[in-house]
Amino acid sequence: MARVFVLLCLLISLLGCRRSQASKPSPHALPGHLGTRVLVVERAAGSLAAYDWSERKLLPVRIEGLGDLHHATMTFGPDLQWGFLATRSGRLVRIDLTTLKVDGEVQTSKNSIDLGITHDGRTIGVAEYIPGGVTLVDAATMQVKTRIPSTSRVTGMVDAPGNKLVCVLIEGQEIWILDPSLPSPVTHKIKAGAGMPYDAMITADGRHYVVGKLGDSGIAVLDLEKPEAGVREVSLRDPELPADVGSPKKLPHMASWAQAGRYLFVPLVGEKRLAVLERETFSFVRSIPLRGHPVYTVRSPNERELWVSFSGEDDDAFLEVVDTQTLAVKRSLRVGRRVYHLDFTPRGSHVLVTANADEELVLVDAARYEVVDRQKLRSPSGIFSPFRAARLGL
Amino acid sequence: MARVFVLLCLLISLLGCRRSQASKPSPHALPGHLGTRVLVVERAAGSLAAYDWSERKLLPVRIEGLGDLHHATMTFGPDLQWGFLATRSGRLVRIDLTTLKVDGEVQTSKNSIDLGITHDGRTIGVAEYIPGGVTLVDAATMQVKTRIPSTSRVTGMVDAPGNKLVCVLIEGQEIWILDPSLPSPVTHKIKAGAGMPYDAMITADGRHYVVGKLGDSGIAVLDLEKPEAGVREVSLRDPELPADVGSPKKLPHMASWAQAGRYLFVPLVGEKRLAVLERETFSFVRSIPLRGHPVYTVRSPNERELWVSFSGEDDDAFLEVVDTQTLAVKRSLRVGRRVYHLDFTPRGSHVLVTANADEELVLVDAARYEVVDRQKLRSPSGIFSPFRAARLGL
Repeated sequence: MARVFVLLCLLISLLGCRRSQASKPSPHALPGHLGTRVLVVERAAGSLAAYDWSERKLLPVRIEGLGDLHHATMTFGPDLQWGFLATRSGRLVRIDLTTLKVDGEVQTSKNSIDLGITHDGRTIGVAEYIPGGVTLVDAATMQVKTRIPSTSRVTGMVDAPGNKLVCVLIEGQEIWILDPSLPSPVTHKIKAGAGMPYDAMITADGRHYVVGKLGDSGIAVLDLEKPEAGVREVSLRDPELPADVGSPKKLPHMASWAQAGRYLFVPLVGEKRLAVLERETFSFVRSIPLRGHPVYTVRSPNERELWVSFSGEDDDAFLEVVDTQTLAVKRSLRVGRRVYHLDFTPRGSHVLVTANADEELVLVDAARYEVVDRQKLRSPSGIFSPFRAARLGL
Repeated sequence: MARVFVLLCLLISLLGCRRSQASKPSPHALPGHLGTRVLVVERAAGSLAAYDWSERKLLPVRIEGLGDLHHATMTFGPDLQWGFLATRSGRLVRIDLTTLKVDGEVQTSKNSIDLGITHDGRTIGVAEYIPGGVTLVDAATMQVKTRIPSTSRVTGMVDAPGNKLVCVLIEGQEIWILDPSLPSPVTHKIKAGAGMPYDAMITADGRHYVVGKLGDSGIAVLDLEKPEAGVREVSLRDPELPADVGSPKKLPHMASWAQAGRYLFVPLVGEKRLAVLERETFSFVRSIPLRGHPVYTVRSPNERELWVSFSGEDDDAFLEVVDTQTLAVKRSLRVGRRVYHLDFTPRGSHVLVTANADEELVLVDAARYEVVDRQKLRSPSGIFSPFRAARLGL
């Protein structure tokens, strides 16, 4: 009897311990801090690693078993409680930013490509590949609110002013504007014009939605204040250059290209140049020749530089830095083979880069153009900072 | 003996409890979340209140006993662990952003007015009024690293690219550039030209330091890439207007005015207008007439609007919204008497405003220009969001 009693006591105290640990995770359990931490997709491993760029340390945590993370992207709620990851396995995964653990997930499709969060932080819009369409998910409960089916793949999902979401249908060649507060959320379906959309972005002023096209030398621009007026098709052909389009090795990403000062910078599909447009009129200004086919074109927070990555073995270890005032390449850096992604720290002091073939995350001092840290990761790809929560369209 | 033993046990267990509480604060102790929380100065009470704009609730915490908080400002480290408050009592106070408790402080002077943090988050520069000069504080240890004395009051302390700090001496009429990594941190002392500086700001591109003047109709502009070239004095006189300068009721604040698109907007001392300058050349474009003397001129994150507050009983309950493309007032809102401060939420969906005379914190839907929440606070003044950590110069 006494033995049973002792065992019972032991069991109760063990349970008590477990519960108190679960309900009181120590904020000091993880080194580093929320603001200087980035989450890095380990593509082949299907995991997320975490790095603190201020302490220059990998955190001793990994979020594993996330499925197919090719082109997986993350968005962050305004309260910085959660990050959300859309996966090519069709799972939307919610990560607790304090504990860096999975804190909810929902299967929205068989294959998702992109996501956006409304400004109130309450609705996630997921762009689906298989089957197509859009899924709206409640960020707090992680339940599907609305499923908007389509036979077309969807991409370019962004937040827009007025708590809206905007996306584009690839085969459907249509831009959708969504208001998640309505029972039928799609308020506008607008023809995206000639050519097949491959990606889209919203300008930092929240006014224009810009769609990149395959098989067309132009982009489509929609003024979100006058959606009924339809898109304007803007040519990116340089009148002074022969039409010299190689077959694209990799499509450029539009997520963070690149409005700086009075210009808009557009990486061209299969060409070794950026097109420079006037930001207000979208008229063509000139081309900026580059060493290779651009993939990412990321502006510095102070808008004075663009940092450009490339596809193709001859070029993909390098970054070129473009001066946004002189419109010329001012610097070239070798950072590591097969650069997959890059992003600035919030006030622009550093750039984080993944060199996928070298399996490295690289930290560059942006004022000195010098590599100041390298960390080994497994097939690193996308880099995501919680400060994306402060930027429209990310 | 047995009694002593019991007492000892009790004491040890109490101490044990206290220690375990201190080392394991529950992250769920506070409602709301770091990203959507703002800290609001309660000026007369010498305290900070906290509000979550997403949940539209005041948090049940107050940080009390902070001393004289007239014009007190806060800056935030990049890791979002701490906010730092400079006070008119000369105390620099560090607030833990997770627990919202004081987590360190240091007396830097008898009266401080402004502060900035280097991009690496390691050094706080405090601008001192009494006695003058600058104090550099180690953000991690909260110990004074360097005291740079001056007989002049100092203001306009900002971070600048390259891990630098910049400030201006009021009576000394001199701009200082500081590199905290050096044993003698002041690397440049540059004459600020005619007139007495009252405040200063750094442009969002991190290139120009702009000094506002009392008793002079101009500003001084320093190109931080060529400090040895000295300041350029730029006139804010409107050639089409008579020189109509009233005596200022309150000096405008320069902290968050206002670069938008290709313009720079300057609130004038004692005049009922903004001056519009070309952002790249600093040449005068035109005036924007306003209902009163502007105090704060805050741009929306998407740079499409300026929200302006006023001094003087006839005007200070109102905000005027200026369209940054048409350069005209497009909207007027009455929010509450004696507006002391305003700021946008990170993606621009809302504006937070303190109406000091009405003792209210007011939340405005920025897309609809509608007040959506009001909360009673004691003499509310400055509003500070952790997302300031992502903005150069704040």
